[in-house]
Amino acid sequence: MNDNLKIIQEYLNQILPEQALWEKELIAYAKDNHVPIIEPISMNFITNLIKLVKPKNILEVGTAIGYSALSMHHAYPEAKITTLERDPEMILKAKENIANYSLNNHINLISEDALISLPKLINQKETYDFIFIDAAKGQYKNFFEYAMKLQNNSGVILTDNVLFKGYVTGKLTDHKRFQKLGEKINTYNRWLMENEKYDTSIIPVGDGIAFSIKK
Amino acid sequence: MNDNLKIIQEYLNQILPEQALWEKELIAYAKDNHVPIIEPISMNFITNLIKLVKPKNILEVGTAIGYSALSMHHAYPEAKITTLERDPEMILKAKENIANYSLNNHINLISEDALISLPKLINQKETYDFIFIDAAKGQYKNFFEYAMKLQNNSGVILTDNVLFKGYVTGKLTDHKRFQKLGEKINTYNRWLMENEKYDTSIIPVGDGIAFSIKK
Repeated sequence: MNDNLKIIQEYLNQILPEQALWEKELIAYAKDNHVPIIEPISMNFITNLIKLVKPKNILEVGTAIGYSALSMHHAYPEAKITTLERDPEMILKAKENIANYSLNNHINLISEDALISLPKLINQKETYDFIFIDAAKGQYKNFFEYAMKLQNNSGVILTDNVLFKGYVTGKLTDHKRFQKLGEKINTYNRWLMENEKYDTSIIPVGDGIAFSIKK
Repeated sequence: MNDNLKIIQEYLNQILPEQALWEKELIAYAKDNHVPIIEPISMNFITNLIKLVKPKNILEVGTAIGYSALSMHHAYPEAKITTLERDPEMILKAKENIANYSLNNHINLISEDALISLPKLINQKETYDFIFIDAAKGQYKNFFEYAMKLQNNSGVILTDNVLFKGYVTGKLTDHKRFQKLGEKINTYNRWLMENEKYDTSIIPVGDGIAFSIKK
């Protein structure tokens, strides 16, 4: 049997537009240092969605080394981006990358656990028209519940890694820890698909992106 | 080796929201009568995109039995939908379905080959903010070139079946006719990814949807 998923993902990678130099450098750094960053084919979908929505304010939960924040920034430099990260090593590297590769001063990195920052942003009555969740997978439901409170009337919430290498399906049985986390994300996905305030599609690009819009 | 694509598509189908009665009836009819219609997981992505974009005018190339036109209509009943179909049998069935299942009089079926209708619509200076191409695969490039001329400043063009069961990759070698058509769609995809007026992502949902937005 062919692994059609692998064949198709390879094809989608092949036909992507050529990456800018800064993108190539960040992707190479992530690979060399085993930092998990979002796949370029997923990022391509997200940046095109941003070009369509033209959000004024973007919120990202989980900066890592800043690859996705910088990609969203280059897609629509007018957007103000707030991005949250708690890992000290990632914060240092992200700050360096943002200083080197952003076109203006529109990316604000908050160096704190998102579970602390998100309630603060709610108290400050901040709102966002595009929210991207790409952090601790065990906290997705919490993150999404905060995100709902931070959203403008029109807007999008994306969640990354919602297919988790296929382990959400319960059909892969070769890795106990992945199966357990997959089951947790599956519970999140089903909760999200039934959420009465949002319509959601799960897009099987890269590791799976949930694309949710306010009803 | 697992066919991860199949496992994931099954999962995505499982977690879809329950379909309305009219949808179930149309899907059952299509199955019984071997009419190829768009997969429900693809339709779910398209209808959520429509809820986000809120297009005033939608153009569809390829009505078939009206399932996708009716789905787009129910997603945003305010939209005016123009849909093109040349097959007399399909036209009859689509008219019946539109009469039975649409909420208002906003779906206009033009019973003519799209290659005749599209230049006419251009001459009439019609414009659309959401265009969905789901007709003869050998004509995709022609359809897209007409679509570019029919589009408003902000807007989306979608093309269905751009992964064509994986045959676009050139890695499947068990079906000569599919390989040939796959190669043709592959040429379209590469042309589309390099189109200087549009940014495109290929979304591997269902049989593959190209999601193009004006630069």
